[in-house]
Amino acid sequence: MAEIQQTSVTVLGLGAMGKALASAFLKTGRPTTVWNRTPGKDTDLVAAGAVGIAAVDEAVRAGEVIVVVLLDHASVHSALDPVAEQLSGKQVINLTSTAPEEARELARWAERHGIDYLDGGIMAVPPMIGQPGASILYSGSRKVFDDNRELLESAAAADYFGDDAGLASTWDFALLSNMYAMFAGFLHGAALVRSTGAAASAFAERATAWVTAMAQLMPEYGRIIDSGDYTTEVQHLAFHKAALDAIVRASRDAGVALDVVGPIKNLIDRQVADGHGALAFERTFEELR
Amino acid sequence: MAEIQQTSVTVLGLGAMGKALASAFLKTGRPTTVWNRTPGKDTDLVAAGAVGIAAVDEAVRAGEVIVVVLLDHASVHSALDPVAEQLSGKQVINLTSTAPEEARELARWAERHGIDYLDGGIMAVPPMIGQPGASILYSGSRKVFDDNRELLESAAAADYFGDDAGLASTWDFALLSNMYAMFAGFLHGAALVRSTGAAASAFAERATAWVTAMAQLMPEYGRIIDSGDYTTEVQHLAFHKAALDAIVRASRDAGVALDVVGPIKNLIDRQVADGHGALAFERTFEELR
Repeated sequence: MAEIQQTSVTVLGLGAMGKALASAFLKTGRPTTVWNRTPGKDTDLVAAGAVGIAAVDEAVRAGEVIVVVLLDHASVHSALDPVAEQLSGKQVINLTSTAPEEARELARWAERHGIDYLDGGIMAVPPMIGQPGASILYSGSRKVFDDNRELLESAAAADYFGDDAGLASTWDFALLSNMYAMFAGFLHGAALVRSTGAAASAFAERATAWVTAMAQLMPEYGRIIDSGDYTTEVQHLAFHKAALDAIVRASRDAGVALDVVGPIKNLIDRQVADGHGALAFERTFEELR
Repeated sequence: MAEIQQTSVTVLGLGAMGKALASAFLKTGRPTTVWNRTPGKDTDLVAAGAVGIAAVDEAVRAGEVIVVVLLDHASVHSALDPVAEQLSGKQVINLTSTAPEEARELARWAERHGIDYLDGGIMAVPPMIGQPGASILYSGSRKVFDDNRELLESAAAADYFGDDAGLASTWDFALLSNMYAMFAGFLHGAALVRSTGAAASAFAERATAWVTAMAQLMPEYGRIIDSGDYTTEVQHLAFHKAALDAIVRASRDAGVALDVVGPIKNLIDRQVADGHGALAFERTFEELR
């Protein structure tokens, strides 16, 4: 029987996410090389069959596809600029968290060096990689996406958004914004119930069920926003103003800081002051965009 | 066969939530009286079998249990103060959104007038009332809660938190804070993808799945907060700072206002500046409480 030849991959960056990705790639049985700027991060991966290489140029030479998972845009340039020549003709998949403009800049940089560039935004925390529910959004080179579909799917569900390398990052950041705001709200709520002596884990149990139920309303919110018609028969902004005024007062009484709920109250107050009190909460979209 | 005598109920306040509750009570077949300060809100309910009464004192006399669903604490006093005498000896269940201190004040007011007082916080939007998934949190008179369990369960799952009338409101506000922050984050994300021409409803589809998945991490966050140990092997605050810096930059580039994500970035920045960059995101709890 002919052995199936699997594309070799090099992972640059062994933070928690880089390690999780390298581990998922290893499980597909493909040759996997790993590199990190500071040494000592590859012990477990090498034990599992990866090749650990300390010199970035050698690490890059070892893989047909280079997966980059570093801290930020600057660290991507810092790692890749010195090896641009070795990367020429290869495929680079950059999963580092970068802003859309930074992804576009990297795509232009890659083009100048004859590198085929795909940008990705990871919608998962490291323990989710390789598990159901993890998702990575991609944009940039369609060829890199298609050629490496199996590799990508070994880490997470893979979706392609278009040629513009900045699209995946925009969607990534949009979803992360939603997540960070949700977690910030969770921490505010936990602080509020803690003021009565209740445990954060008791709050979390209820909050998970509640937030999960409320999240199911977002598609309806999306339809209202797309329609641009914010008239409503149900709870309008004046109602939400009363609720947020009370929440802010209660938070202050309980000694809980207003960093999270204060700005939301201000957004609602501003709209009511501008005469939009009878419109739906979803109108807040217009204050943001 | 003896007919089961059901407690008669009066609903004060026919906003969207009051209407939904009165409708759920009517479905249990019990005598249901409805009142609203401004007339014309009871048409559908009267058609469904409710008795609509324009004078609040008569409305209060008609019910053994009085369910109050008004705009805020002030409107509760404004409606109930003139009929305190008629309320004496009755049970009042106040589901108006009030702050914990306001619920406690109403409990004291009720006690002075010989009224048995239960406070509740509604964890649902009006269309959810009477449906699975709706929940109402209660605190205050245990007797009122126990006596009316069936009535309460006809509207939503009912949970009792304790004698302190302010507890239900505290939990209510904690969950609402989580919800408002989640929705604010959703609107920010929708504005971000709209800058690339994408529809809010396309974003909502992904955001619902993503937020639902992420919400399942909250119990683990709760355990970490309760432990007080914020050391972490995975993504620490310095990582989140890089992500939020990038999100804020991208939002600014896309012309999206920073009302939602700016304050979260500031919370993270402050902790990194204070030397907590190697700790977990959950440490943000300590900045809030």
